[in-house]
Parts: sequence; structure tokens; C-alpha cells
Amino acid sequence: MAEDALVVFTPSGRRGRFPLGTPLLKAARALGVDVDSVCGGRGICGRCQIVQQVGSFSKHGIESREENLTAFNEVETRYKTKKGMKEGRRLSCQAVLRGDAVIDVPADSQVHRQVVRKRAEVRDIELDPAIRLHYVEVDEPDMHNPSGDLERLQKALLEQWDLSSLECDLHILQTLQKSLRDGKWKVTVAVHRSKVIVAIWPGFHDRAYGIAVDVGSTTIAAHLCSLRSGEVIASSGIMNPQIRFGEDLMSRVSYIMMNPGGEVELTRAVREGLIELIKEVCAEAEVAPEEVLNATFVGNPIMHHLLLGIDPVELGGAPFALALNQGLTLWASEIGLAINEDARVYILPCIAGHVGADTAGVVLSETPYLSDDVVLICDVGTNAEIVLGNKERLLAASSPTGPAFEGAQISCGQRAAPGAIERLRIDPETLEPRYKVIGCDLWSNEEGFEQQIAKVGVTGICGSGIIEALGEMVLSGILANDGTIDGGMAALSPRVQPDGRTFSYLIREGEPEIRVTQNDVRAIQLAKAALYAGAKLLMEKLGVESVDRIVLAGAFGSHIDVKYAMILGMLPDCELEKVTSAGNAAGTGARIALLNQKARDEIEQVVKRIEKIETAVEPKFQEHFVGAMGLPHASDPYPKLAQSVPLPAPKRAQPPQSEGGGERRRRRRG
Amino acid sequence: MAEDALVVFTPSGRRGRFPLGTPLLKAARALGVDVDSVCGGRGICGRCQIVQQVGSFSKHGIESREENLTAFNEVETRYKTKKGMKEGRRLSCQAVLRGDAVIDVPADSQVHRQVVRKRAEVRDIELDPAIRLHYVEVDEPDMHNPSGDLERLQKALLEQWDLSSLECDLHILQTLQKSLRDGKWKVTVAVHRSKVIVAIWPGFHDRAYGIAVDVGSTTIAAHLCSLRSGEVIASSGIMNPQIRFGEDLMSRVSYIMMNPGGEVELTRAVREGLIELIKEVCAEAEVAPEEVLNATFVGNPIMHHLLLGIDPVELGGAPFALALNQGLTLWASEIGLAINEDARVYILPCIAGHVGADTAGVVLSETPYLSDDVVLICDVGTNAEIVLGNKERLLAASSPTGPAFEGAQISCGQRAAPGAIERLRIDPETLEPRYKVIGCDLWSNEEGFEQQIAKVGVTGICGSGIIEALGEMVLSGILANDGTIDGGMAALSPRVQPDGRTFSYLIREGEPEIRVTQNDVRAIQLAKAALYAGAKLLMEKLGVESVDRIVLAGAFGSHIDVKYAMILGMLPDCELEKVTSAGNAAGTGARIALLNQKARDEIEQVVKRIEKIETAVEPKFQEHFVGAMGLPHASDPYPKLAQSVPLPAPKRAQPPQSEGGGERRRRRRG
Repeated sequence: MAEDALVVFTPSGRRGRFPLGTPLLKAARALGVDVDSVCGGRGICGRCQIVQQVGSFSKHGIESREENLTAFNEVETRYKTKKGMKEGRRLSCQAVLRGDAVIDVPADSQVHRQVVRKRAEVRDIELDPAIRLHYVEVDEPDMHNPSGDLERLQKALLEQWDLSSLECDLHILQTLQKSLRDGKWKVTVAVHRSKVIVAIWPGFHDRAYGIAVDVGSTTIAAHLCSLRSGEVIASSGIMNPQIRFGEDLMSRVSYIMMNPGGEVELTRAVREGLIELIKEVCAEAEVAPEEVLNATFVGNPIMHHLLLGIDPVELGGAPFALALNQGLTLWASEIGLAINEDARVYILPCIAGHVGADTAGVVLSETPYLSDDVVLICDVGTNAEIVLGNKERLLAASSPTGPAFEGAQISCGQRAAPGAIERLRIDPETLEPRYKVIGCDLWSNEEGFEQQIAKVGVTGICGSGIIEALGEMVLSGILANDGTIDGGMAALSPRVQPDGRTFSYLIREGEPEIRVTQNDVRAIQLAKAALYAGAKLLMEKLGVESVDRIVLAGAFGSHIDVKYAMILGMLPDCELEKVTSAGNAAGTGARIALLNQKARDEIEQVVKRIEKIETAVEPKFQEHFVGAMGLPHASDPYPKLAQSVPLPAPKRAQPPQSEGGGERRRRRRG
Repeated sequence: MAEDALVVFTPSGRRGRFPLGTPLLKAARALGVDVDSVCGGRGICGRCQIVQQVGSFSKHGIESREENLTAFNEVETRYKTKKGMKEGRRLSCQAVLRGDAVIDVPADSQVHRQVVRKRAEVRDIELDPAIRLHYVEVDEPDMHNPSGDLERLQKALLEQWDLSSLECDLHILQTLQKSLRDGKWKVTVAVHRSKVIVAIWPGFHDRAYGIAVDVGSTTIAAHLCSLRSGEVIASSGIMNPQIRFGEDLMSRVSYIMMNPGGEVELTRAVREGLIELIKEVCAEAEVAPEEVLNATFVGNPIMHHLLLGIDPVELGGAPFALALNQGLTLWASEIGLAINEDARVYILPCIAGHVGADTAGVVLSETPYLSDDVVLICDVGTNAEIVLGNKERLLAASSPTGPAFEGAQISCGQRAAPGAIERLRIDPETLEPRYKVIGCDLWSNEEGFEQQIAKVGVTGICGSGIIEALGEMVLSGILANDGTIDGGMAALSPRVQPDGRTFSYLIREGEPEIRVTQNDVRAIQLAKAALYAGAKLLMEKLGVESVDRIVLAGAFGSHIDVKYAMILGMLPDCELEKVTSAGNAAGTGARIALLNQKARDEIEQVVKRIEKIETAVEPKFQEHFVGAMGLPHASDPYPKLAQSVPLPAPKRAQPPQSEGGGERRRRRRG
């Protein structure tokens, strides 16, 4: 009995008896306790740190005395001196059982540790990247028993890491012999999904990075993550270089239709942009592009196809057939990415012809498929992708809102960029406006505004600005509930002015003059009716009268004041506090797929069972659309509610939506 | 009972009852009868032809009346008119059972038909290529049920061909939509090993080619094969362009050692040569390189590594460690081949540092692992690869013969090329020689020889010539059994002449003068002793005193007269009729791996269990080597035998060794 000892690991509570002399790491492994290790117990990586809980633990029936572990040894001293280690910590591969012990495994020593997301309502990301590093000691070649270097490496990986039947990229074979000899038969390999060796370094190597990319039609955003910690270490964005072929998706598709081979130009443009972006984000984090071993991508169907070099013209007309609606794993070089030449790229699945991999990313981030509540998710961009349902059933559709919510098709509209009016209030008495402009901290009626604004100028009104303008026009009675700008108000304020055969509301005089025209109102009415009709159609298909929660995804969703969206009737009824903004949930989905390989299988399964609705063939959609064109009246419930809610702090002053812990960010506009 | 009918298929003898109205192809499939089809029973491909055996078959208990099949139909008439079909043949997908029938499946309608090899002693190749064509009809996209084109293609492949979980190369995705629409939702796909779609064509497509390549240090030979028939449709060879970096392997390795980055140059050279060779062989057969969907390669370890872009320097010194000793499947583009961009390449496994994928090809061709007899296989090139064993055990080694057998290190030696003496006889009375020269049909003592030879000249002596010269010198008593040229013979013939401190034998006067020097004899003695010692070492390891059969592989093995090899004691004792030449067995192995995918798995399994012997670390090898240096005396058994055996017809007048049926050939020398 004296030959073995009881060990209890916390927080898991797993326990077992082991012979004296057993290293703690070995005991932990035997009990299935989640303790990380790259070096396989050689005291090099420092991943397997634990803390002995010294004392008497009646709950465990254990006397955990300090001397029940071997003393801090030479290997630990060397590690602590070279790399540093918190007081009280031990390397579990070095600390050996001499008696009963209670051992705590800190979160940062767990393989499957949680990467915490800021928003309380969503689950954390369990770190389980597709790329794992493994340090191995390989047998030297023996003339008496000839064998290949790869064969011996595979044997070492099987014996030391239980990895079997590993394949190997050709580039690895080309450097294998040198790596093994330079490392004196000790190497670290990167293994993709426990199947393929994709990188090799002589000796011990502890750096591995991944990049999650959201390819939007307007901007491309990239998050560089450590695959060891799961943390975002740099983020950056650029304009999608395809913009020179057309501002919106359809004009790019038209370009391709008019210019044979145009799809090749657009593919080249986006890939060149990606090379630039990745170079930039890597430089910022001081990571060599060769250290980026994995990348994940989301994007709408047309961006998805163009990234892959697939002509998107089929997506431009009925029946809107995707080339594929499955996730795809490729070599980075196949899409021309300048990262490690054997890095793997995973592209999330598209859902349907109008509902892309970006929406799959949103679904992965928001997990409606795990929800008990019925949740409505709207990702509003040029069109609105709508997902509705819960763990029982999920439906998805795209509503043809057009780009009005992005400021396009609005007379003074512009993209959200410095100079754009993003917020607006109308004095219900005087009908005078006050507004805030991106790039300026002051409201227009505050002292010093004109001086401050002189630099950027007031150049237009963006999506959130036009929504607030229309909301305020409703609240102040300037807009009738059929959407007409009430010409009678012209008598009360010089701001309401005749404009051809209709009227407009003047926000700002000067050059350029900023006003809301009757056509602008019509454009927003069409867009919001489409969004509402899409949501309503899905609710009808699902058989629900109301939804329990609404999540607004995307830049628009996080910049608009939800209250105004409700005032205008963009969304089905829902308690205001049940309407949340998810920020760039598509990008978060890409990050989840980067950090957790099982999430890739998960989203592919979910996408298969999503019921895809094509609004174009649903007569009911047209019906809902027509019914949703109207606007509420100033006396309707939401306007009342709106007037009683205090103004929230301006949102744009905060950092952009993203949730990774400790991440540095950069953002570009214009 | 009248509702079904009995059908018997020959030659398999499989039989079963089927409802009247069953197409014969369906019945055959249900019974597991091997009937080919690319179009899946649509009467397009004509692969499923059968012949009804009309009459009374008491052995089967069947009355097979002509009217028991439906009449020749419109589809069959169309096929016969367009493509032609032998009288009496039917398309089994069109002929429907109306009563009992005996049906013969001709060999050319079988999927797994045998590709006949010319040599009686080896097994035929069962056609089962890694690339298979499948014609499918794919559902059109439906807006009411959105799905991806790939998803519908996969569904069709599952339903129509029982192929599940197929992956798809990115290039296919890039052309998928156009192919489906151009083919009006009918396409043919090429599937690699039932796993990946590697090519797609609109409509029906019936052409698929493969190429088997033997990368030798001196020449590279390629056979272009139809993957539908298994036949070789064109063959060609070129000099290995690496020759400019060194004639033999070790000088190329030295070049790399002396010139950093030299391995890149050598890899580029061999790949450029391959591009040229493939272009040429395709042009000859009027096949577009894009139609080549599969390629297989054999080569010695250094050629193998250089082809793959792996630095071979490790193979140039102890412990001679291979980078890998496994078979490898790659994209053709990974090694820069200009064939179909998604073609797959299979490279046979190397066995050990000195025993390469070429030897694996020899093993696959000669199947010693299936032999009851103990067989010794020698592939003599710059060095000699030796395989010994039977189905119980197999051993392999490389003997350091050096390049003397190839005419190198011989004073007047040269490669087997026009102008080289390849055969030689010495008159035992006069000691006068007569000889044959490559490029000339006459023996040197025949009338008109000098006129004929004037064009090419007599430039040297090649491997088979030097072997015969030494053999004849033994038989005529010019060579003593210690290998000394007997100076005493100078008194008998002016051909035996003092040469420094030794003597030499003059074959031909003039410019250049051709003679066999004492050093030449020593070089051949060393080479033959090494070959013999290697064989003897393996015999000892295997525990046998003698071998049942000897197979000589490679150009040398097929050009030398085996009798002289025996006279010189190059090989262990064996009955002369049990010594056969296998021709380019390595190349045949590549062709087998091309035509039969299971052969790839088979050779990988076999290579794993071959016992690898490194002669450099075997003290016994040295012992055998020294013991084998001597030559027999004119009165020894073999010389007697040799004198009594009539001369065989000259071998070089025949086409080069290769066995494919109906193949056109080209051959280059020099």
C-alpha cells in the first residue's frame, strides 16, 4: 500500500492511485485530465504547469504534504530561469509522486481551455485548433536496419503522441532530412486535424498562428490569432480591391457578364488584397507569414466563389445555384495566399445562393441551433440574410433590401466613413436637426463643432444616420404613415422644403447640401419592407407569431440604434431588451472555426439541416412586402417608447465590435 | 413462374432468376458479373456488349432461344451505326430478358479484363486503373429546394454509381457549373481511387490516359497507356538531362555537394526532360497532355529523390538514409508535370538507400513474393540490385558493382550505342576475334562488313561486348583463372600484346584501336565479384545453398548472353534454362501500378516486409567478394557447356524489351 499514492486533480475532480515515482503529467494523462504539453514531458515547453494544493483535504480524504512531491528539480529551474514561471507552479512532467497529493490544473495549462468571449449571452470558444504542434525525438537511421526518415518520424509520432497513419506534404519531405539532422533528431511538427504533417522545425518550436478572414464586398477584415492561446494578436482591415469593378455585388457580376474573363480579374483583385492584408497584420504582430499555418474564411456567396476562382455569374440570376454548399479545406497556395506554403485554408460552407459562408459564420457564432428560444438573426448588408429558429428547426433566407441601409441609393447617402452623419435628432417643436458626424466628437449644436468639422467636412449621411433621420421624422410628424413628407409642415419650418413635385427635409446647408428627399424615404421604405417581409415569411414557415429574441449582426446592426429600427418597423415585434447586436458575427464565426476544428464539422452539419427559403419564389413574401411598406404614426407604441428612452452613449466612439480578449485593433474607414 | 427467367453468364458461370423485363446489364450487376459500363446503361458507351448463346444448353438446363431477349433496338442501331459493333453482339443495357438465356461476356466487355503480357512465366495485368470514368445525369437546380451543383453531382454519383463521400479538386469546382450547363446536366467525371473527382467533361467522354515512367540515371522511358483498354499506345525515351551534371549517380551527388543549390538544378533538369518526353509521347499517340490523368514513376533512390525535389546527398554516404520509403500520391503539378492539372502521380516506394522504386517495380513485375521457388532477381545497372526469396521471405540488397558492366571504367568501354561492339567470338585455334557492332547487321568477318561499318565506325565496346570478350578469353585460354592475361599466348598470336608491365588483347586495329587491357579484366572481375558476393550473401541470409531460378532485369540483363555471365561466375549456379531475362521489369512495374490500383497497395505491403540488407555493414560480403574474384579455367564445367551450346540469334535485332500488346514503339540511342 505504501507503494502507491492517491492523487486528485482539480477542478476536474478526477482521482486515482499511482505507483510512487509516477510523474504527475503521466498520472493526469492516465486519468484523462486535460493537461497541455507540446514537448511530451521533456520539461521544454512549460505547458504542463500545475500547482500543488498543500494541506489536509478532508473532502478528498487526503493529506497533501509538500514533501509528497519530489523537490523542484534542475529541469524546472532551467525552465524557470529561461522562460519564467509563477511562484508555486511546477512542471507536472517533472514533479513526481512520493505520496498523496491534490493538484490544481490552472486554466492556462489546459489543452481545451476556453477562449472567453465578451458577450455574456454567447458560449466561449473551446480552444481545439486544427493545427497542433508536437515535439518528438526520432530514432537515428541504422544501417543494420535500413528505414526512411519519414518512417522513423511517423513511428515517433505514434509512440510519443499516439498519432497514426499521418500523411506528409511534399514540402515537408523536401526539408525533412535537414530538419532532423539540424535538430539532432529532435523536431517539432505541425499536424493538421491529426492527419497530415504540414510543417516541421528542427528542435523545439512553440509558435503557431492562424488567421480568420471575413471577405466582405466592401471591406476585408482579418484577425491574426495565436493557435496556442487562442488570443487575437492583431486585427486589420482593407477595402476590398474589387470595388474598382463595382461598388456593389451586382455591378461586379455585371462587369463579369460584360467582360469575358472578368471573373479572373476579380479573383486576382481579392487575392492580391488578401496578400496585402495578411502581410500587414503579420507585420503588426511581428509574426512571419510562414508562421501562419491555418486560415479560415467567410464571405457572401459571390465573394466566396470569387475567392475560390469560381465564376459567380450563376449566382446573378435564377435559379441562383451555388457551385458548392459545403465547407472546403484547401492548401493556402491553391488560392494564392502568401502564408506558410503548406498551410491549410478552411472555407465555411455557403447555405444557399443568397445566403453565404458569412451567414454560416453568424450561425456558428450565435448558435441558434442550440437555442431553446426562437431567435431571429438579421445580418444586414447590401441584402439582409435572415436566420430564424431554435434547436428544433432553423430556416434561412435572404431579403432583397438592396443597399439603401448602407447609404447607397440615398441622394446624400454614403458609406460609413469620416464626414458621414451617423446620428440625428429633430426637435419636435422647432423641427431643427442636430447630428453627429463620423470623425467628430461633438454634436452639431455643440460649441466648437464647426471648427472641428472643418477638417473632414460633412460629406453625406450613412446608413445609421438615415435610419435615425427617418425615425425622428416620424416622431416629429414630418413623415406621414404612408411615407409622404408632409408638405403642410413647410409652413412650420423652413427645413421642410418643396422639391419638385414632392418635399424634402434639409439637414444642413452649404456645400454639399445634405437633405432627406421623398425618394430617400421611398428607398428606405422598400428596404425595411423587404427585411420585415423576409422575417415574417420565415416566421410563418416556422409557424410562430412572434420571436423570443432578435440578434442584429454586421456593421449596420451594431451601429444603428435598435430603437429606431423598431420605430420604422424594420423588424417584427420584440421586447427592446431582447434585441441585441452581435457585431461582426460572421468574422467571429471564422475565428471560432479557426480555433476549434470540431466547430467546422458542427457548422457543416447545421448548414445541411437549415431549411433554405428562396424569397423570389414565395408569393407570400410579396404580400408581406407590400403590407410592410407603411410607417407608424407618431402616436404608435414604439415612437412613444422611443421618446421615453434616454439616449445611449454614442456607439462609434467605442472600439469596433469584436470580442477576443486582449486584442489590439486597427480600423480603417474611407 | 412465367414472370421470371433464368439467366446464365459465361465464362463466370454465375446464374440467377430475374423478372421478365430485366435488362441484362442489371442482371449481370446483381449477380456480380464483371461487365463494364461508363454511361451507366444509357446505350452511349458501348462498353457492356454481350453475345447471346442461342441453343439448348443441357448443362445449364436452359433453352436459350433468340426471342428470349428483346429485339435489337433503336439505341443499339444508333450505337452500331455511329461506332460499329461486331455481328451478334448486343448492348446488355438494352437487351431485356423475355425468357431464359445464356449470355457470354467477351473479354473486352469486362471491367477487370486481363492485359496480356508476352512472357509466359509472369502473370497478366488485371485492368483496374486508379482513374475511372463515370457518366452521370445530374438534377437541375431548383429554387424551391436550393442546393449546390456539387451536392447534386455527388448525389447523382451516389445514386448512379454507388460512389459516396467523393471529394473534389478546386479546379473541378471552378469549371463545374459550366460543364454541367454545357452538357445539359449530363457530364462525365474522372474519379481517382473512388475518392476524388479529378476531371469533368460536359456530356459523354470516353478517353482517359495514363503514363508509366522509368526514370533511369541514363535514360528516361515513358509508356503512354489507355486507361480504358490497358494497352500501351506509344512509348518513347530520352537521355536523362541530368547527364550534363555527371555521367553516373555519384558524380551527380558530388556535383550537389560541391555546388550549393545544385539539387534544385538537377530536379529542374529531370522535370524539364519529363515535360519534353511526355509532350513527345502524347504527340505521337495524338493524345492531348490534358487527357493524361494518371502517371506512375519508378527510379533508383537518387532519381526518386531528385524527381521529388529532395536533396539526395544523404544517400551519398552512410547511413544512406532515405527521406521516405513509402509510396506517394501527389498532384502532377507538385512535381511540375505538364499533364492534366489535376492528374495524380503515384511514385512507387523505395526499398532502402541503395534499392529504389525501380527495384520495387521489378518486384511488382516479377512477383517473387508469390513464388514457391526461390528466385534470384538481379537488376544490373551502375550497381546491381538483388532480390532473393519466395512467398515466405524476401531479401534485398545492392551490390557495389560500379559501372563496369555498363562499359564505364573500361579502357575502350562505352555505353550501348551505335558503334559499340556488343558481341564477340575468339577462334580457339587462331585466337582471332570476330564481333558484331551495334548499328550493323553483319559480323566483322562477313562480307561487306567494312563498307557497312564505315558510316558509324567502331567506337568502343559496351557491357555485353566486354562480358563476351572476357568469356571468350577464358574459353580460349588467354585468361588465366586468376584473371591474368597470359603473356605466354603472345607467342601464339599477335593479338596478345605486351602493354606496359602486363598484356592486352587487341580486338581491332585502327582509329580508335579497340583492345581489352589487364585493367579492364580487373574492373570486370571486381564488378562480377561484387554481384556474386551480393547474391551469395542473400542466399546465406535466407539459408539456401542454391536458387531455383534467376531473373535478369534491366537493359544489361536482356542484352548479355547469360551463358557468358555464367562462364565468368557473375551469378550463382543455376540451370541455364532457369535463367531468364525480364527486360525493363522496373518500367513494367510502373505500368502495372498504372493499370492496377491494388498493385500499389500490394507493392507497398511487400516492400515493408522485404528484409533490407546493407552490404557495407556485412563482413561476410567482403569475404564472398574476395572469394569470387577468380575466373574459371577453360576446363571448368561452364566453359564446356558454353562451347556446346549453339549461338542464339542476335538479340539486339529484336525490338526492345517490353510486353504490352499491340504497342507502337520508339527507341533512342546515343
